Amino acid sequence: MVNSELAYPAGVECAHRVPVPPSKPFLETFQANLKEAFFPDDPLRQFKNQPPLKKLLNGLQYFIPILSWAPKYTLDLFKSDLIAGITIASLAIPQGISYAKLANLPPVLGLYSSFVPPLVYAMMGSSKDLAVGTVAVASLLIASMLGKEVSAVQNPGLYLHLAFTATFFAGVFQATLGFLRLGFIVDFLSHATIVGFMGGAATVVCLQQLKGILGLEHFTTSTDLVSVMESVFTQTQKWRWESVVLGCCFLFFLLSTRYFSKLRPRFFWASAAAPLLSVILGSLLVYLTHAENHGVQVIGYLKKGLNPPSVTDLVFSPPHMALALKVGIITGIIALAEGIAVGRSFAMFKNYHIDGNKEMIAFGMMNMAGSLTSCYLTTGPFSRTAVNYNAGCKTAMSNVIMAIAVMITLLFLTPLFHYTPLVVLSSIIISAMLGLIDYEAAIHLWQVDKIDFCVCIGAYLGVVFGSVEIGLVLAVAISLLRVLIFVARPRTTVLGNIPNSMIYRRMDQYPAAQSVPGVFIIQIDAPIYFTNSSYLRERISRWIDEEEDKIKEKGENSLQYVILDMGAVGSIDTSGISMLGEVRKVLERRGLQLVLANPGSEVMKKLDKAKVLEAIGQSWVFLTVGEAVGACSFLLHTCKTRTANGVDADTLANDNNV
Amino acid sequence: MVNSELAYPAGVECAHRVPVPPSKPFLETFQANLKEAFFPDDPLRQFKNQPPLKKLLNGLQYFIPILSWAPKYTLDLFKSDLIAGITIASLAIPQGISYAKLANLPPVLGLYSSFVPPLVYAMMGSSKDLAVGTVAVASLLIASMLGKEVSAVQNPGLYLHLAFTATFFAGVFQATLGFLRLGFIVDFLSHATIVGFMGGAATVVCLQQLKGILGLEHFTTSTDLVSVMESVFTQTQKWRWESVVLGCCFLFFLLSTRYFSKLRPRFFWASAAAPLLSVILGSLLVYLTHAENHGVQVIGYLKKGLNPPSVTDLVFSPPHMALALKVGIITGIIALAEGIAVGRSFAMFKNYHIDGNKEMIAFGMMNMAGSLTSCYLTTGPFSRTAVNYNAGCKTAMSNVIMAIAVMITLLFLTPLFHYTPLVVLSSIIISAMLGLIDYEAAIHLWQVDKIDFCVCIGAYLGVVFGSVEIGLVLAVAISLLRVLIFVARPRTTVLGNIPNSMIYRRMDQYPAAQSVPGVFIIQIDAPIYFTNSSYLRERISRWIDEEEDKIKEKGENSLQYVILDMGAVGSIDTSGISMLGEVRKVLERRGLQLVLANPGSEVMKKLDKAKVLEAIGQSWVFLTVGEAVGACSFLLHTCKTRTANGVDADTLANDNNV
Repeated sequence: MVNSELAYPAGVECAHRVPVPPSKPFLETFQANLKEAFFPDDPLRQFKNQPPLKKLLNGLQYFIPILSWAPKYTLDLFKSDLIAGITIASLAIPQGISYAKLANLPPVLGLYSSFVPPLVYAMMGSSKDLAVGTVAVASLLIASMLGKEVSAVQNPGLYLHLAFTATFFAGVFQATLGFLRLGFIVDFLSHATIVGFMGGAATVVCLQQLKGILGLEHFTTSTDLVSVMESVFTQTQKWRWESVVLGCCFLFFLLSTRYFSKLRPRFFWASAAAPLLSVILGSLLVYLTHAENHGVQVIGYLKKGLNPPSVTDLVFSPPHMALALKVGIITGIIALAEGIAVGRSFAMFKNYHIDGNKEMIAFGMMNMAGSLTSCYLTTGPFSRTAVNYNAGCKTAMSNVIMAIAVMITLLFLTPLFHYTPLVVLSSIIISAMLGLIDYEAAIHLWQVDKIDFCVCIGAYLGVVFGSVEIGLVLAVAISLLRVLIFVARPRTTVLGNIPNSMIYRRMDQYPAAQSVPGVFIIQIDAPIYFTNSSYLRERISRWIDEEEDKIKEKGENSLQYVILDMGAVGSIDTSGISMLGEVRKVLERRGLQLVLANPGSEVMKKLDKAKVLEAIGQSWVFLTVGEAVGACSFLLHTCKTRTANGVDADTLANDNNV
Repeated sequence: MVNSELAYPAGVECAHRVPVPPSKPFLETFQANLKEAFFPDDPLRQFKNQPPLKKLLNGLQYFIPILSWAPKYTLDLFKSDLIAGITIASLAIPQGISYAKLANLPPVLGLYSSFVPPLVYAMMGSSKDLAVGTVAVASLLIASMLGKEVSAVQNPGLYLHLAFTATFFAGVFQATLGFLRLGFIVDFLSHATIVGFMGGAATVVCLQQLKGILGLEHFTTSTDLVSVMESVFTQTQKWRWESVVLGCCFLFFLLSTRYFSKLRPRFFWASAAAPLLSVILGSLLVYLTHAENHGVQVIGYLKKGLNPPSVTDLVFSPPHMALALKVGIITGIIALAEGIAVGRSFAMFKNYHIDGNKEMIAFGMMNMAGSLTSCYLTTGPFSRTAVNYNAGCKTAMSNVIMAIAVMITLLFLTPLFHYTPLVVLSSIIISAMLGLIDYEAAIHLWQVDKIDFCVCIGAYLGVVFGSVEIGLVLAVAISLLRVLIFVARPRTTVLGNIPNSMIYRRMDQYPAAQSVPGVFIIQIDAPIYFTNSSYLRERISRWIDEEEDKIKEKGENSLQYVILDMGAVGSIDTSGISMLGEVRKVLERRGLQLVLANPGSEVMKKLDKAKVLEAIGQSWVFLTVGEAVGACSFLLHTCKTRTANGVDADTLANDNNV
């Protein structure tokens, strides 16, 4: 033990003063706070002390990371990326078509969306593992939010254009958040919210697939459980057994390959290739048996050729622009939350760092570019990224390989999908969605934190029984309410002395901790703000009332000192400062002395400026609870023996401290 | 020094273990948390261990405090209350009439509102100093919010009924908040918000009085500065000099008595009696000179008699009920905020306690009773309560005296107000409002806390240039944003050793604090939540990066241990727990050991349940930073000498701790 010999020599402790920090110019503090709030990761660090040319290069590399890794790219890396790229392409093609159907958009849009956005991301993204593509939840949201005002069946042109416009706004919103360094907004969607929300959305998406599996032609446009069940069970006569049998077979096949791959991670390609295999098998089956004439719906004609431009399709005129803006912002932030979370988790596996704000700019650019080339909202889906990671991708080059594979498909292979039955797409979606219902995470939440569990279940039930938006709003509201309740009702605890030490700790946590006669120590466990200052004032009074009752019962000596341990008070506002002033006055009237232990510099500065420090007396502020108790006990002891001589306790405290 | 002899004996510190608290049943914790959140003042304490009859009596006295103080009421107390009651009545009568005019309601309503509500409050209220009455801000709000949809000139009957209905809803809302113990909602209006908001409202009310002072007949219905100035300066031809002269004289008289009373608090009655005196003088002047025929507007006919019932006037039918509900809730919460704040401040002067939730019930009951007897919204205005306090009131009986004085006025004296000029009422309002513009408090806010100052100025400007509602929303939004930014961006600081002690403190606050070689200590100053966990993860990484850069520059020994001081982490959620798990993994990959110091019981419990504690190792959790540093330094020292022998640091830590 190195430091342990440095014990407290008796009587010296009070030499530790808590200084009032020198006041800094307002602008300087403001700038520092601003930097801490918006540039906590100090992104400009690498630009310091560099020549101008180097700065320019660094700046370019900062925004276009491919410039920094492409020069070092090797054949070995390429081999790994090639395998990963082909693997994710085989997943991307059927998934893309399925999700586009889910969004009520032409299926070929799913392929378009796997061509341009991955190329943009490969240049601008900083994740090495993220595989870009459309996602089920955002697709469903687009369908339900746009569908409320514009019918995809009656007015497909406008619907399509609004989808592009929403994508454009989502991109602008994402890039703006990144540029303004407001990435922390995404953090307000907690893990618990996302688990519940994703689970709910996956459930809802699966329910929607009953349409495809049962071969129904008419289906409710609502997404809630009640409407869907009603829609399903009022049409029992229209269920098509051919479709059901085909769907169940493929679902069984897909789920068993997933299970197999999970059991043996080496065979990751089995689950990755299964969807494409299903599509090929299903198409062959329909082609050979002409099942399309017997109630099995197929995709039909897919246009050959690359993405047509869609700049002129964007809608910037009144009646529908507001809708597109709203859809864009909501889907944009959800896509962002998923993409950033996925990127960060995989970056952590490989121990590299991802700058959330930079990623947002990349996502925004990719969606803006996408919206101009007939793509709809893309992000970094978890399932595809996991396959990419398992397939051994090394850089964002795997996205480029995927894009090339999709390009070849678009140029030459689209006719092959003519006979692909919709029921196979439904099976693919269901098997992907089941993986998103993360019941294990929900159990974990229940074990660790009941409130987080409530947030999660709230989001889940909101999505399943209400709508995707209701679930999201509900979950965010519960999460924020929790934070606000914590801020409004901080914990205060009584400290006691750990025997044979100068350490003071919470008496409810450490049963060995003992109270000190004549002294009462309260720890405040949170910043003091207007939201909690009147609560704290009342709670402190109640603590003292209760303590005095206890003392009376036991017939011990009465209280003389109340020590507030301010170590955990990270911040304070004027309401908090006046609360401390009031507590001092109330204590004074009860004949008690207020003592502060370990206040932070912000607290000291504000106490000083508000003249509350003067009222309390600088000599009643101590560096540690131990020293405060020491001084109080010393005074208690001396006063008992000296009171007759008229020595004032305050004078003693001053003598002792100066 | 009592405790200081108990120094740390070398090598014993690690015997202080941080135990994982035993898990309690969920319901028990939930109940305890609920109690702490909603019953922090333990209102049922006095009912414990009492016989049933006593419990009943206590319960009655709890809700109707007059039962507890009336039996002990003495003649001496009555003498004081009589003087105070007459004093506030002389203020209440002119103010009541003025504020009713401000709300575009019949002037007699101001008198009605000073009769029934004070009687109800005297029975149910727990403040001894609060004087009940109408307030300018709520009156203005009623006028502006109701006036937007229903004109007081064209449809005075409906307007009046809606004002009663809004008062009824305000009362229901206030009582409900009290019963549900949601009083803390009022705390979300911070002191800074109220200062700015009140100042802005007072400015707006003064501006509105330009109508009366200038003798204008037509005036804008908007309250913002721009509209009012436009309205005033486009009608310069219609200004009446008689009115202006009269107004300025009375204003001068009122302000000088206020100033005089402020200078010599013994003459409090001068400022209290001045408004009534102005009314009498003004009325006499008009009566004698027949000025009402020369452009000086007068109140006119006031109905004689007590409050007529208004139960049947309440509007509970669709088109207008929603408006009344909205007005009721907004004015109700503002009235509540003012009343509770005023009650609490004066209770503190006299050192008695006020239960906010109980007061809310009293306010609610008083407004519900008022709405049924032709009164509009009342609360405890600051000015009247201050006069009551200065006049030496002892109990709520002074409200009863005031009510009796108003009753006599209503029964016999209303004809005397026929010739009272409106310009006098305007002067009374202006002189009362100028006292509400608390520029000194704004300066204090600037000195102590710049953000609170921004909140205050935001509220002020919002009210003056926008509307009362905009100002309020702006101020609450800025206040909440501040709390959320704090929650999203908690402070982290590096700790160092205070020389010659085992104390570790912030190095930016204590310049003497020294870093310990090979060990890096970070303090987290806030609860860890989903809103800040990813920020904290990145910030901790950046601290370590910067520290390692510094160490490299200096050529010192590399880092080995990172100690997180968790003393200020009052609470944590699952995102926070996983963040700690991730930090551990990242540090491990960099070859660093994560050490926790002084985690609270909630943190320990959740770390344990989430198995993160297992991953970190129970032996790497210490009671204090000092002990953690001691152990790390010891290991660093031993490893240097023993590494050759293949002794594992982890084993040593375990040996040392078990």
